[in-house]
Amino acid sequence: MSEPASLVDPLRDSVFMRACRREAVPFTPIWLMRQAGRYMQEYREVRARLGFLELCKTPALAAEVTVTAAERLGVDAAIIFADILLIIEPMGLELEFSKGEGPVIHNPVRNAADVARLREVDDVGALDFVFAAIKETRAALRSNLPLIGFAGAPFTLASYIVEGGASKNYVHTKSLMYNDSGAWHALMSLISRGLIKYLNAQVVAGAQAVQLFDSWVGALSPDDYREFVLPHTSAVIAGVTPGVPVIHFGTGTSTLLELQRAAGGDVIGLDWRVRLDEGWQRIGYDRGVMGNLDPVALFANREHLRARAKLILDQASGRPGHIFNLGHGILPETPVENVIALIDAVHEMSSK
Amino acid sequence: MSEPASLVDPLRDSVFMRACRREAVPFTPIWLMRQAGRYMQEYREVRARLGFLELCKTPALAAEVTVTAAERLGVDAAIIFADILLIIEPMGLELEFSKGEGPVIHNPVRNAADVARLREVDDVGALDFVFAAIKETRAALRSNLPLIGFAGAPFTLASYIVEGGASKNYVHTKSLMYNDSGAWHALMSLISRGLIKYLNAQVVAGAQAVQLFDSWVGALSPDDYREFVLPHTSAVIAGVTPGVPVIHFGTGTSTLLELQRAAGGDVIGLDWRVRLDEGWQRIGYDRGVMGNLDPVALFANREHLRARAKLILDQASGRPGHIFNLGHGILPETPVENVIALIDAVHEMSSK
Repeated sequence: MSEPASLVDPLRDSVFMRACRREAVPFTPIWLMRQAGRYMQEYREVRARLGFLELCKTPALAAEVTVTAAERLGVDAAIIFADILLIIEPMGLELEFSKGEGPVIHNPVRNAADVARLREVDDVGALDFVFAAIKETRAALRSNLPLIGFAGAPFTLASYIVEGGASKNYVHTKSLMYNDSGAWHALMSLISRGLIKYLNAQVVAGAQAVQLFDSWVGALSPDDYREFVLPHTSAVIAGVTPGVPVIHFGTGTSTLLELQRAAGGDVIGLDWRVRLDEGWQRIGYDRGVMGNLDPVALFANREHLRARAKLILDQASGRPGHIFNLGHGILPETPVENVIALIDAVHEMSSK
Repeated sequence: MSEPASLVDPLRDSVFMRACRREAVPFTPIWLMRQAGRYMQEYREVRARLGFLELCKTPALAAEVTVTAAERLGVDAAIIFADILLIIEPMGLELEFSKGEGPVIHNPVRNAADVARLREVDDVGALDFVFAAIKETRAALRSNLPLIGFAGAPFTLASYIVEGGASKNYVHTKSLMYNDSGAWHALMSLISRGLIKYLNAQVVAGAQAVQLFDSWVGALSPDDYREFVLPHTSAVIAGVTPGVPVIHFGTGTSTLLELQRAAGGDVIGLDWRVRLDEGWQRIGYDRGVMGNLDPVALFANREHLRARAKLILDQASGRPGHIFNLGHGILPETPVENVIALIDAVHEMSSK
């Protein structure tokens, strides 16, 4: 006997969404950060025709690469093709993706006067292309495959805005933090207010869950995180539409896990530097965890790859609330057949 | 009444050496990784005349920059000016320091056949310039100022040898590890055997203590560290001349501390990502700790810098066995006057 149609919500009842709520699942859901990316032939073909930012700003193509990756891989969630830095353009920052060098911001923020010149993101209309891509993607995806929206977390965005691009030591970022905490907090607040609007507009457009990428926050000491980051990340997460699961992700965060939990998130991302069992215990079992295979494990032979995936599943020990993922994004040189083998192996080994 | 001259050993009784043995000290000793480096005018003047490798291989000048830095700063230990990669040349690897790009190894090791072609470092005579620099430095230093010798730890050296230079994701290194563990262990054993000879020859030449730099080992999961690194680092440390303190240093190692302790070392280096009190507790109070100020704190105003140094001293709570240092090397743009201010502040605030 099937349930009455009105009670069935294939998205809400999907394995991924159930895991976000720490409900029992028939197998461990898996998706992979940067699953639509350069390692995939279909993606490279699209990118041969246009630049990275241009692709982000062309909803039909952003939707195409999102859907193609999700379908080809057989993952349990799609994530919208976009970039964490898109939101900084409406703030008045000049963003460019230069070939090989990654993102460059031509007018970085270094002091209070620079912060004062930034624009408040009152209206997220400048990011309509993201919402259009989400709508197109949602319409094209299988009706039971959730779509994840996302944004950069305040610290990671601030680090790009202050450094003017990627960084190794975060000298400008931390200097601002240490020498003008007023300007720092003003910058983080401005970013955070924009993020809340941006994430909620992604939800309205059709995202079932959102992820906050604090990719570079592992550069901070726990005390710096508590003082300079936690209040802002916390405000963003608290501002997300109630009922929408938030995944709170970072790398190199083994000493920040308790503080990240305090900042919020239904699911906390773990990288491979911490054992999943130890990390989950420290975060607490009233939150889910996502992770945590080393992306380089996808370069190992099948036997080794499978054994490593099993180790992680064993550490999760079938506890509801585990979403399998890498500890960071798929690397460009990754063999696509190994990615598919991993997804199949996780599904098979975790099936009840 | 003074002690009989024969019982006084000013090096053995120095504050730094006492701290290495976890004996009571009148103040917390401090030295800084890369204290003779590009942030210092005197160093830049020497480097204007010759290349980095050439400087390493010119004992009189290597001694000069070592001694100049130690004297100008007023630190409690000198560290010989050299590079962790010097030992790979006698193994048959072609090393070059290209301007701006850092070290390049022109014939990287990628498989078992490459490993088989490497030369055993039976005779460390090819590194005589290091020992000569140590002798000259020892002769020029104050008689109570200890000199630290050093080497790269097996994993960090292997990562350079396999990648052919610095790396972000260690794809080649981990691929070798995962796909041909026999070749990996053969490479690590070869490096380790050479390191023992090299470190002990530095001791014979006049170093009072040695430091093993496992700078990049934080890229590994705890399980990978245990299987692929620990036995080798352990062999190197066990092979160091008894009675010579070994400092075992890494960055991003918050989840590896217990395993690093197991591998050995009288003093374990901590970076700023872990609180010193928490890190020391996990390592155990029967070992010393070194650290752990964020190098970027040296860009903060004096008040902030002093407060951060005090936080670390407070966390050490006067327990014997703390050597103050940064969590990683001094950055090239660091203001030298802030470095001196830090050293003075640590001496003053920790004086009993």
